[in-house]
Amino acid sequence: MSNLIPESHIVLFERPVIASLGTVMPDGRPQVNPVWCDYDGTHVRVNSAQGRQKDRNLRERAFATILLRDPENSFFWVEVRGKAVEITTEGGDAHIDSLAKKYTGEETYPWRVPGEVRVIYKILPERVVASG
Amino acid sequence: MSNLIPESHIVLFERPVIASLGTVMPDGRPQVNPVWCDYDGTHVRVNSAQGRQKDRNLRERAFATILLRDPENSFFWVEVRGKAVEITTEGGDAHIDSLAKKYTGEETYPWRVPGEVRVIYKILPERVVASG
Repeated sequence: MSNLIPESHIVLFERPVIASLGTVMPDGRPQVNPVWCDYDGTHVRVNSAQGRQKDRNLRERAFATILLRDPENSFFWVEVRGKAVEITTEGGDAHIDSLAKKYTGEETYPWRVPGEVRVIYKILPERVVASG
Repeated sequence: MSNLIPESHIVLFERPVIASLGTVMPDGRPQVNPVWCDYDGTHVRVNSAQGRQKDRNLRERAFATILLRDPENSFFWVEVRGKAVEITTEGGDAHIDSLAKKYTGEETYPWRVPGEVRVIYKILPERVVASG
């Protein structure tokens, strides 16, 4: 266990692997939702929309856990536990477009909803468990 | 949101879809790990080994959240939040064999470790979020 993502597992962030994001509900139980993410070399970055449950959870309780699992090899996975140390709308639209490019190949996010405000959550790894 | 898994999403428990299990660490942060699971008509059942972190978490704090996502259709997923209402070693070996059959096609669990005690966690759904 370390606070660094091993170099061997960075590839999971480079490929379009859908992550499971764990946050904490007001009553203490986990919420686990599928999300797109990337890694900026320091933070795991997730993008969601203002007002969603995971947005409210992360603003109230910064704990965030990301699981990325190779769809072709179930032994190859990484779990990153950390905190959302920065939550910002700045660059939120450009970031969801860049994730859309990674995950769908399209240049812009195809499911944009009018009025929706995109938010970046920058998760600083504190504990990393790597398998495989 | 309901406490029932919609009939449309039961198929995710019938196919060999690897789940993400969220439990709660002693300090309140989520642990999210890949697990095999099935559904007995009432409980989502997970199987792990005595002494592992998720075993300790579930014995100390019953909150358990399961995310199952169709690997072929990222919009089709179900999140089940509940509690481990029963934790038992009874039938634990037969259950891991039955999960091995479902997930690998083999008759018995191929990665058995001598001395390992297999445990069934029966999770009663309390909140279900279904997508797709």
